Amino acid sequence: MATFAMPSPTTAETMAKERANPPFDVRKLSIAMHGSQKSLLLKEKFMAEISRDPAFYLADIYDLSKDQIRERTMEKFKTLVHYVTTEPLDQFNYRMQLISTVDPGFWTRFGVHFGLFLGAIRSGASPAQFNYWIDKGVIGLNGVIGCFGMTELAHGSNVAGVETTATFDEKTDEFIIHTPHLGATKWWIGGAASTATHCAVFAQLIVKGKKHGVKTFIVQLRDVQTFQLKPGINIGDIGKKMGRDGIDNGYIQFTYVRVPRAHMLMKHTQVSREGIVTDPPLAQLTYGALLSGRIAMVADSSNTAKKALTIALRYAVVRRQFSAGKNQLETQLIDYPIHQRRLIPYMAQAIAIGFTSLILTKMYNELTESMETLEPGDPNLKGVLAKLKETHSTSAGLKAFCTWACLETIDKCRQSCGGHGYSAYSGFPNMYADFAVQCTWEGDNTILSLQSGRALVSSWEDAKKGKALSPGVAYMSAKSNLTAKSNGKLDLHDIDQAWACVAANVVKKASEDFASHTSKGLSKDEAMERCSQSRFIAAKLHTIGYIFRMFRRACDEQEEGSEKQLLTDICRLYGLWQIEEQGASFLKYAYFDGKQMDAVQAEVDALCLALRRVVVPVVDAFAISDHIINSPLGRYDGDVYTAYFNHVRAANPPNKEHPYFERLIKPLLNRKPLDEEDVDAVMGFSEELAELERERKAGK
Amino acid sequence: MATFAMPSPTTAETMAKERANPPFDVRKLSIAMHGSQKSLLLKEKFMAEISRDPAFYLADIYDLSKDQIRERTMEKFKTLVHYVTTEPLDQFNYRMQLISTVDPGFWTRFGVHFGLFLGAIRSGASPAQFNYWIDKGVIGLNGVIGCFGMTELAHGSNVAGVETTATFDEKTDEFIIHTPHLGATKWWIGGAASTATHCAVFAQLIVKGKKHGVKTFIVQLRDVQTFQLKPGINIGDIGKKMGRDGIDNGYIQFTYVRVPRAHMLMKHTQVSREGIVTDPPLAQLTYGALLSGRIAMVADSSNTAKKALTIALRYAVVRRQFSAGKNQLETQLIDYPIHQRRLIPYMAQAIAIGFTSLILTKMYNELTESMETLEPGDPNLKGVLAKLKETHSTSAGLKAFCTWACLETIDKCRQSCGGHGYSAYSGFPNMYADFAVQCTWEGDNTILSLQSGRALVSSWEDAKKGKALSPGVAYMSAKSNLTAKSNGKLDLHDIDQAWACVAANVVKKASEDFASHTSKGLSKDEAMERCSQSRFIAAKLHTIGYIFRMFRRACDEQEEGSEKQLLTDICRLYGLWQIEEQGASFLKYAYFDGKQMDAVQAEVDALCLALRRVVVPVVDAFAISDHIINSPLGRYDGDVYTAYFNHVRAANPPNKEHPYFERLIKPLLNRKPLDEEDVDAVMGFSEELAELERERKAGK
Repeated sequence: MATFAMPSPTTAETMAKERANPPFDVRKLSIAMHGSQKSLLLKEKFMAEISRDPAFYLADIYDLSKDQIRERTMEKFKTLVHYVTTEPLDQFNYRMQLISTVDPGFWTRFGVHFGLFLGAIRSGASPAQFNYWIDKGVIGLNGVIGCFGMTELAHGSNVAGVETTATFDEKTDEFIIHTPHLGATKWWIGGAASTATHCAVFAQLIVKGKKHGVKTFIVQLRDVQTFQLKPGINIGDIGKKMGRDGIDNGYIQFTYVRVPRAHMLMKHTQVSREGIVTDPPLAQLTYGALLSGRIAMVADSSNTAKKALTIALRYAVVRRQFSAGKNQLETQLIDYPIHQRRLIPYMAQAIAIGFTSLILTKMYNELTESMETLEPGDPNLKGVLAKLKETHSTSAGLKAFCTWACLETIDKCRQSCGGHGYSAYSGFPNMYADFAVQCTWEGDNTILSLQSGRALVSSWEDAKKGKALSPGVAYMSAKSNLTAKSNGKLDLHDIDQAWACVAANVVKKASEDFASHTSKGLSKDEAMERCSQSRFIAAKLHTIGYIFRMFRRACDEQEEGSEKQLLTDICRLYGLWQIEEQGASFLKYAYFDGKQMDAVQAEVDALCLALRRVVVPVVDAFAISDHIINSPLGRYDGDVYTAYFNHVRAANPPNKEHPYFERLIKPLLNRKPLDEEDVDAVMGFSEELAELERERKAGK
Repeated sequence: MATFAMPSPTTAETMAKERANPPFDVRKLSIAMHGSQKSLLLKEKFMAEISRDPAFYLADIYDLSKDQIRERTMEKFKTLVHYVTTEPLDQFNYRMQLISTVDPGFWTRFGVHFGLFLGAIRSGASPAQFNYWIDKGVIGLNGVIGCFGMTELAHGSNVAGVETTATFDEKTDEFIIHTPHLGATKWWIGGAASTATHCAVFAQLIVKGKKHGVKTFIVQLRDVQTFQLKPGINIGDIGKKMGRDGIDNGYIQFTYVRVPRAHMLMKHTQVSREGIVTDPPLAQLTYGALLSGRIAMVADSSNTAKKALTIALRYAVVRRQFSAGKNQLETQLIDYPIHQRRLIPYMAQAIAIGFTSLILTKMYNELTESMETLEPGDPNLKGVLAKLKETHSTSAGLKAFCTWACLETIDKCRQSCGGHGYSAYSGFPNMYADFAVQCTWEGDNTILSLQSGRALVSSWEDAKKGKALSPGVAYMSAKSNLTAKSNGKLDLHDIDQAWACVAANVVKKASEDFASHTSKGLSKDEAMERCSQSRFIAAKLHTIGYIFRMFRRACDEQEEGSEKQLLTDICRLYGLWQIEEQGASFLKYAYFDGKQMDAVQAEVDALCLALRRVVVPVVDAFAISDHIINSPLGRYDGDVYTAYFNHVRAANPPNKEHPYFERLIKPLLNRKPLDEEDVDAVMGFSEELAELERERKAGK
């Protein structure tokens, strides 16, 4: 009778067909997107190592409790400590970039020590202090696991406002670290709850009763042998979070904890034995440390979005729903124009951010190198500082809009998988919950956008004064940009000019708003706040335009061939789709008129349709292994239903006994009607009483 | 020395100040937003009952495992079964609306039986069948707990394509329910995993080898006394989901399961003893059942958004960050114009959706009443069907855009609370994860938007032909609307006209796109798909305009007074902010020019600033108890830090012993350098070997 086999073509057959005869070389495209063949080969080596490492077993993670995940996360330290002590730094950083898409909680927990704690020492310690901590074993976690005590219960964004105090005691040559009240409790401190032995504590330096601003102090939290808390230290677990359960965030309260004077990091500000405070000559350079986090988040935004898109696009190809006619095969989701619209522009965006990240990382490495060799009085100082300033504001905007873009991509991908996207095993719920914090930490996205907007306004003022602008904002100098019009071609040049025109105009608008507020007598700070909506729009348009320009540059640099042609189409799609998304500004500043906007919409439709044919080869070129994808819906082979069913069954074996049938369900199912109040019985009882009463009265 | 007390003013003092002397009557506003005093009083009674019910203890829910939540959820059945059997239906529905914001997982699990299973019987059973199930005890869960077996692993949106079969066996007068292959496994079935005894199974009716489409069959899954699965039934747990852990979704496979012929619901299609199939005369009326879910989701979107906004706005008032000058008190977040922008327009939107929901519910109740009294051949039939059609497409658009709006609101609120929003105890992570499914179930939002867009295109064709349009789309009839221009006043009338103008234009555009595709020879269905982006935009603009119009109508109906004035301001903010959001269309169809769009932006800023003063009284008027808020950040009294700290500490008591220090951390911290490979030892060993070799050769 029935065969019990799934109807033909199977999902795996459909997938194979999508993969056959791609119109370009998938490997070449993959190399282009990874920056070099070497990068791709390294990544493939890392992926193989991770997939074979027992600590990185992932099949069961969606069902682990917070405490189980925390323990599992700690198991991964051993492998990575091996690599961090034996691998060149750039290679290890690249490994960590991959790890971030595999296990964001572990990435954080491990990164708190190596990125934040060690980073604080690297950027804040004097050479002698630095050697002291290195000799102590910081690199290999020998005797020290650090955490980063910056934020407090009542202070996050405003780091300069933290209220923990570090008071110099001249008598003993010590600092007294103290939490004056509940609001000053160190809060969100990753690794504090159950990993760290030491903490880089940000506290208000007080010497001879005078405040000197926030400095960093290394404070030991726990005994290395027993893990007992040191006297005066109170630590608690912050508990359940939206995501990243693998990282043990905690709170820390200090009650008059004493540390030697040498435990204040003194590369910049110094406190002498006599309590004389010396401030640094190059305060700006200390901000360089913030950049690496932002750069990493731009890369992570691209990589995580690519992971989500690999799942959603592979699923869109094998999932069929509704047939166009009776007895016809149901249509693949990706063949619906609206489904193309739901996913393919996001694919273009993830690729655009990926190329931007490659260029940004290179810029950052060059900058770091020039900063590290810089001495006070260096003739290159001015140039380096200008570059630092631009990278600082550009990366602020990129961090904000790229992390938002990725978060949105994950949720769009999840929704595009319908009900199955809501299953934990699809991978999307954890991906979203884990990624969400990127929009908040290391600078709340809205605040960073406004910082970027403030820098743009100031560049605009410079341009008006005829000053030379740095490359990232140079488009503002050309007055013709303000009034440019589309030539109707919608090619890369036209699109590039469109972004330059509109970005220049929205920056101009923010600048005018600012000026109109100051002209009404508001202070500069107050005027900046009042024009923040315009600043925000300026930062947004500038950043999208910047991403487009970086992508375009990457396209231009490709060798001629079908891969270059493909990337050019993807780049056009990104630029045009974002013009639609920000359509109000393009119409307002009349780069396009209404008819041209219709043409933009039609062209986005056409590009989506054209790119639909290559979605599987393109996501294959993202080169993310099934182990990292960790979603039956996004499997390489397309055998989604069998894999999903098997995963669900393995993760949820039937209970031998129902845990609460007897206690809760059976009494509900089998109760008598009017169980709660047996009216007849009560009435009967009353009549009985009445009869007794009658009998009593009758004197019986 | 130090006092250890938090600095003054405390957060609670700040909150008290915000609440003092509101410029309107909070109670009156609250009554207006709840529709009537009676509704508000009822809600307050429900809230008191729930907060005192031990089954609704909520303080620990953010730390429960999936299995613990499932058991806790089942404990709540007893209370609600009491009310469902004793309370008037409209009152009980209103109670459930509240429950949905308290515990969405429970709402689903309970609603699967009462909404879906019982709803299937109500709309599908013949009178005799209906009486049979009622007598059996369906209302009070006596002997029957139902689930709703519609979706399958390979079929969700396309219900007509489900592959489970129900084959009529004339010999025995039974149907054979069967799952032919893995893809036809019933999937996502709420309550199947560990609650339900019966299932309303959607299956392809097959009689004498001929398919008759999808019908509903009641199939018993488990024994009521032992809860053992019936022969031929295989059920498994679908396991971990993004949210709503309280509902036990499962999968079901049927292997030739026999049910009596009477277990097919036969109000519409009937199968006789002889296997003669009779189809219903009024097929359209069966779709009425879909509406109640959508209507409920519009209400839930407003209520859940109000809950999120209560937390975010109360927090925004007491949280201070950065001071404008030295020694000045730090600024309340809500005093930053950008923070007003982040929240106050969403507050306006939640209120707008709330009023829309009140009007929609009333319309729906009237419609249901007229449908229930309808007989074939009734003279009112045509009118009722037209009304049903409009409610159907309007509610499709509303369901989609209101649930999206709410999901976005939750995430915006979470992000506006910075790092603390990422804590599970803030309430946002669960709220987001629980709510997210509303965008997918009972019609994927994108598909529903396109349905709404299709209906709009068809209304446009009607308007062109001069046919009378139903009230919700009547604005399309006025040709002057297409070319209307702003009078610059930006008052309710101007805004209303703006939405009518632009909505009419985008519907026209969708219609033209459709026509251009058919003129190129595409089939109607194919042309509909190809114009789906335009259809989507049409549905979006129409729906937002509809919400604005409903809100405006509600404002008009208020008594004169400060509450009406306030609501009018909020209504203007909603309309103008959405004009900004959809700015491209307003510029494209030239209702506003660029300068006027600047004025819109300035007016949104000004309204945000004006409404900033009343955010606390307004969210107080949402009337959501602290028990339901269940977030220390959103407490009525504003004492956020103490409450948050206490909550975190209570939920995460210190471990007596570190669970893995000895196993994982200590070995890392205390290992020798080069632990992994002791080069000296190895070399020593080799030399030992060499010596032995030398000795052997020397013949020792």
